[in-house]
Amino acid sequence: MTEKKPRRISIAVDMDGVLADTETHFIKYYETESGEKFDRSAMLGIPESQSFPDKTAVSRYVNTAGFFRTLPLIGGAVQAIHTLMKDFDVYIVSAAMEYPLSLYEKKLWLEEYFPFVHWKNIVFCGDKSIIKTDFLIDDHLKNLDNFSGIPLMFTAAHNMNYNHHQRMNNWEEILAYFRSIRQD
Amino acid sequence: MTEKKPRRISIAVDMDGVLADTETHFIKYYETESGEKFDRSAMLGIPESQSFPDKTAVSRYVNTAGFFRTLPLIGGAVQAIHTLMKDFDVYIVSAAMEYPLSLYEKKLWLEEYFPFVHWKNIVFCGDKSIIKTDFLIDDHLKNLDNFSGIPLMFTAAHNMNYNHHQRMNNWEEILAYFRSIRQD
Repeated sequence: MTEKKPRRISIAVDMDGVLADTETHFIKYYETESGEKFDRSAMLGIPESQSFPDKTAVSRYVNTAGFFRTLPLIGGAVQAIHTLMKDFDVYIVSAAMEYPLSLYEKKLWLEEYFPFVHWKNIVFCGDKSIIKTDFLIDDHLKNLDNFSGIPLMFTAAHNMNYNHHQRMNNWEEILAYFRSIRQD
Repeated sequence: MTEKKPRRISIAVDMDGVLADTETHFIKYYETESGEKFDRSAMLGIPESQSFPDKTAVSRYVNTAGFFRTLPLIGGAVQAIHTLMKDFDVYIVSAAMEYPLSLYEKKLWLEEYFPFVHWKNIVFCGDKSIIKTDFLIDDHLKNLDNFSGIPLMFTAAHNMNYNHHQRMNNWEEILAYFRSIRQD
């Protein structure tokens, strides 16, 4: 007989736009490719795919080998995940299946920056509606809207005009939120 | 406002040992490597990792490039998934995260044999306990025991001595089972 551990509150955490700074990476790719400076404020309230004058740019970048392997981190993400794992079951849940080439790159990226997250706690999926955690931290409405638990919207340029989910502007705010509900 | 579709019963389906014939593939690899004929009945009731005289064999095979890309199909799996998809939400859920090299190979394998399964319905995970579907068809107790929905145990040599989950011996039995509960 296996002994059942007491159940802990579980948190699913998205990768792109939440752990990894996809916006900055898109801009870097665009500026390198076009040779022009890009004004970040032009992304506010605009879907990612429509962010740049060249509407095919984002789709090309996410299908370019190396894009997901070289993403920069969102500030505070590594320490915050480390902290949350002390009191919560944390799962990294990425909709990686849309870009098959990204699967291995995303796994290597996680091994580099989050080596303390066990492979059992990593999920690469398509539709996140079948994820059964208590919380989901994500920047995309398509994931948050259909989630069965409590959705927390991580601020991104593309979601600035939506306010039907509780907004988290950065990892400090997330840590403060979960400190207030921590199980003791 | 997006219109909500009526909820359909959802089924998570494991890959290795359920869609893909890992037993036959292990034996083929072992016979090729050792030059000896292997008696399949020696696998009955034995954990996969202990199936062969060389106890390092299985671990080596699953970490060999090409192993997951060249798996043979379990009989009836393709047609059965196609049939189930008419009445149920079917998700392919594989614990692929244990073998990072397998991620891309498994995706290519699915594209070859199950091109009609949308990427949104594919999940590569570690621990399956966070999968929120109504059913899970799997051959491994570690997945079935912790599943929150209804577990169905797909017969494999290694699970022959366990009977605490409803057993399904082949895809014909699974189709008959779901025909009996189909929503009309």
